Amino acid sequence: MERILRKCRIQNQLVRECLAECLGVYILILFGCGSVAQVTTTRNQKGEYLSINLGFALGVTLGVYVSRGVSGAHLNPAVSLSLCALGRHSWFKLPFYIFFQLLGAFLAAATVALQYYGDGGELTVSGPNATAGIFCTFPDEYLSLLGGFIDQVIGTAALLLCILALGDSGQGSIPEGVQPVLVGAVVMVIGVSMGSNSGYALNPARDFGPRLFTYIAGWGVDVFTAGGGWWWVPLVAPCVGALLGTLVYELMIEVHHDPGLKHRAAWKWRSPTVKNLFRHIIIDMDF
Amino acid sequence: MERILRKCRIQNQLVRECLAECLGVYILILFGCGSVAQVTTTRNQKGEYLSINLGFALGVTLGVYVSRGVSGAHLNPAVSLSLCALGRHSWFKLPFYIFFQLLGAFLAAATVALQYYGDGGELTVSGPNATAGIFCTFPDEYLSLLGGFIDQVIGTAALLLCILALGDSGQGSIPEGVQPVLVGAVVMVIGVSMGSNSGYALNPARDFGPRLFTYIAGWGVDVFTAGGGWWWVPLVAPCVGALLGTLVYELMIEVHHDPGLKHRAAWKWRSPTVKNLFRHIIIDMDF
Amino acid sequence: MERILRKCRIQNQLVRECLAECLGVYILILFGCGSVAQVTTTRNQKGEYLSINLGFALGVTLGVYVSRGVSGAHLNPAVSLSLCALGRHSWFKLPFYIFFQLLGAFLAAATVALQYYGDGGELTVSGPNATAGIFCTFPDEYLSLLGGFIDQVIGTAALLLCILALGDSGQGSIPEGVQPVLVGAVVMVIGVSMGSNSGYALNPARDFGPRLFTYIAGWGVDVFTAGGGWWWVPLVAPCVGALLGTLVYELMIEVHHDPGLKHRAAWKWRSPTVKNLFRHIIIDMDF
Amino acid sequence: MERILRKCRIQNQLVRECLAECLGVYILILFGCGSVAQVTTTRNQKGEYLSINLGFALGVTLGVYVSRGVSGAHLNPAVSLSLCALGRHSWFKLPFYIFFQLLGAFLAAATVALQYYGDGGELTVSGPNATAGIFCTFPDEYLSLLGGFIDQVIGTAALLLCILALGDSGQGSIPEGVQPVLVGAVVMVIGVSMGSNSGYALNPARDFGPRLFTYIAGWGVDVFTAGGGWWWVPLVAPCVGALLGTLVYELMIEVHHDPGLKHRAAWKWRSPTVKNLFRHIIIDMDF
Repeated sequence: MERILRKCRIQNQLVRECLAECLGVYILILFGCGSVAQVTTTRNQKGEYLSINLGFALGVTLGVYVSRGVSGAHLNPAVSLSLCALGRHSWFKLPFYIFFQLLGAFLAAATVALQYYGDGGELTVSGPNATAGIFCTFPDEYLSLLGGFIDQVIGTAALLLCILALGDSGQGSIPEGVQPVLVGAVVMVIGVSMGSNSGYALNPARDFGPRLFTYIAGWGVDVFTAGGGWWWVPLVAPCVGALLGTLVYELMIEVHHDPGLKHRAAWKWRSPTVKNLFRHIIIDMDF
Repeated sequence: MERILRKCRIQNQLVRECLAECLGVYILILFGCGSVAQVTTTRNQKGEYLSINLGFALGVTLGVYVSRGVSGAHLNPAVSLSLCALGRHSWFKLPFYIFFQLLGAFLAAATVALQYYGDGGELTVSGPNATAGIFCTFPDEYLSLLGGFIDQVIGTAALLLCILALGDSGQGSIPEGVQPVLVGAVVMVIGVSMGSNSGYALNPARDFGPRLFTYIAGWGVDVFTAGGGWWWVPLVAPCVGALLGTLVYELMIEVHHDPGLKHRAAWKWRSPTVKNLFRHIIIDMDF
Repeated sequence: MERILRKCRIQNQLVRECLAECLGVYILILFGCGSVAQVTTTRNQKGEYLSINLGFALGVTLGVYVSRGVSGAHLNPAVSLSLCALGRHSWFKLPFYIFFQLLGAFLAAATVALQYYGDGGELTVSGPNATAGIFCTFPDEYLSLLGGFIDQVIGTAALLLCILALGDSGQGSIPEGVQPVLVGAVVMVIGVSMGSNSGYALNPARDFGPRLFTYIAGWGVDVFTAGGGWWWVPLVAPCVGALLGTLVYELMIEVHHDPGLKHRAAWKWRSPTVKNLFRHIIIDMDF
Repeated sequence: MERILRKCRIQNQLVRECLAECLGVYILILFGCGSVAQVTTTRNQKGEYLSINLGFALGVTLGVYVSRGVSGAHLNPAVSLSLCALGRHSWFKLPFYIFFQLLGAFLAAATVALQYYGDGGELTVSGPNATAGIFCTFPDEYLSLLGGFIDQVIGTAALLLCILALGDSGQGSIPEGVQPVLVGAVVMVIGVSMGSNSGYALNPARDFGPRLFTYIAGWGVDVFTAGGGWWWVPLVAPCVGALLGTLVYELMIEVHHDPGLKHRAAWKWRSPTVKNLFRHIIIDMDF
């Protein structure tokens, strides 16, 4: 079997990276939205809010393991954007990454729907039996659009700030292969501390891919009009937040590192060994 | 005492591997089904659905630690099958592995029954006091047989996809001895996100061994007829799902790795040091 | 300050080991019984059964970190006994270890009582406001003494079996300093899967030290008569279980390892570096 | 962008350390108080007491990752004080560290208020809708001031005792980069076992920074008068407890280590590589 498989080998680096981003986001959404589906459809009998936090946290961790060696495991357009702004990822690749991240999220939403709604079920956006919230986020009733925007900016800024700290060799090293677990822990704690206002999307692909799926699959145009036209906030706010968090971390910590250390780190980033591949979970090498 | 023990030494590699698989699955089911028993018999007073998720996740982790150095810790006929299909495990050993995996699960179910039903208790398959669900899986009422089949295929595909990513040296390394924890995390997140439909068996031995025990121990033929003759689904669907997940991971990620890296990895697999033994938690060396 | 402290240095190895065992068990019981106190006194408002599982699991982990480099972190007379039987610990030291393990547990129980009952509170063994269960274990009402004995034998056998696997270099290595976390995970999963019948003492010192404290501090003789004279079961059953688990692991896995590997491991046990100290979290070096 | 950022570089070591302490405490309080806010404002619908434990535990872990390489990640005036007393941190820097720790906590409290109260909400200290408890601690009703003082002394003593054990090379090493997770685990288990009496502040900055914010932001003078003038206890008791815990660990374990080992450890502390930077998560190098 291995010989037959080897014939399917694709050598183009960009195609490989796009496949990896697609599969990584697929795993993230499959487990993340799956956990919301389990809690929603069993009405908290087989899960609780902590299960959803765990679903997204471990979903991110495993999504990173599935793609880190190939694409650097961005899994999030806002992360890709920040890395481009920092000069650690090529702007050329950005649209390809974003498209395949969205595609992975769309396909994963379809899989979750197949698992939980293959036998039929209610497709409603609001009310006591609302199920659209399984797939994409909606703000809590008391929240204004501006409040939700600020909430998402703060959440994504915290995400990027922590991710950059975890990848910053000036802070000291982290054992190879443990970083994806810590990235999952960041998502866990954001879900535990900033999840209730508007569902901690933090990621345009995580929110828009499944939203598009629900629109097509029968939940209808309500998924765009609900929450006062909420849908664009999880697209824009995470990008603003990611850039803000990046800026804060760089200005308060990273730029002040001893340049000697800095330089050594930069050299490591370019070396093409497996060991280095790992060190760049977040930081793509082609710049 | 150590000298006496040393006289019992068995040198046959296959027998040693079978003993390790048996003990590994025993630990997995002892903790996994034990956690269901605790939640069921205390009616959620000393545990909740998350405890069951933790029971199976840590059960898998510790089952792997108990057997990884000897048999490679498959602990699951569907995993053994996938590795055979990939040419990483010998077809000759497959039936032996499966038999001892089933035996371990059967014995663990007997131990759980001794612990929780040694003093007597109700042995019923359905109704408000149903206890057969402690040992083997049954689908939720609303689920069709086809729906349950798809659910198990998706779950096991996700399991294999993640396990292969964790063992893929082209993704970067993972510290020696940490992989069993991550395999447990995969089982945790599947339980959190895909557990409510049909109980995430994911493993023919985990389901059939305890089911056979309940049949013999007094729950009767209902354990086979319940759920519309559900019993064969957790035997067949995980095997289909495992092969599907393997195929997806190989086609989307692993076959595209740089062959140079690939080769180095293959060489490592054959080297007979303890260090390497570890690197093959999943991948048996005798091929 | 450091210079003054250095004058208090004790050079006697046995005294140092006893102090470490005492402090290790103190930490274990302080966090373990503290978590039961929190759940009991707030009537599940600030904790649940999972919190208790976490309290004992992390209590064990941190107890091991506090003593591993000095005494090997047995923290449990049943563990000390098994290691003596295996020839990995000296019989001469056994009574000293046991006494200081009991002392640590006694002092920790006193600390928990000070924290939660310094301002007064009900000191009753049974009934709706029972608080003796904060400190020591009592069997569930439906459980016979024999049933509880079997429950404790199985639980402690599982504990030793897993601990020996984690320390067995024939299974592959585990990163230095991670083993205490995994030992905590074993205690976690036992609490999740075998905690409801009789409170998973698993450890004569963990149970008898606090029981003695409650007897003296005002709960009275009921702590010995309750549960049909339950008090001796958590003393005897864990010892039987520990020896059983040790025997099963040795006979099914460890004796069959390649003697070459075995020998190398044995050699490592005797080498006196910090690195080795770590590798023997469980296995004391002076034999 | 990276070039522009590099122009903002600050070379003064003390300023860099203060910025790192400030950002580290900010992250700790942002996630910690955020989790209390989520549980309080959703009335346990999207979180429970365990979520709060997780929020503070992971908050500490990530706060350490954000600052460990620059300031040694004290994040707590009581920790800084203990390290000064042990001669491992300079007394001169102490007031600067404390001020910036307080500042970080104050700013994080403001951020949490913006996220959860940007749209308005009740600002009350006691009663069924009390929200001041989101930001700073108050003792349980039944607790006397002395009882609360003892509670905080015991809690912080346990914290320091465990942190010193985790940083003590005489206990054996811990993989680089894993220590912050273990420090988080200490905070987790203290929350699980000693959280209900008076809210486990354990840290003068964690409590006083947010308390000052609530005073200014509209909760008023009640935050100082409530609980019988409780506010000074989380300032004084943690300092007493930290020194007590340090003394106990030093006298029972660390001073008795073989001086040879001790010396080697000391030598490592002074070596200026990244590797060493890491080893001093807790122990500042400038002494």
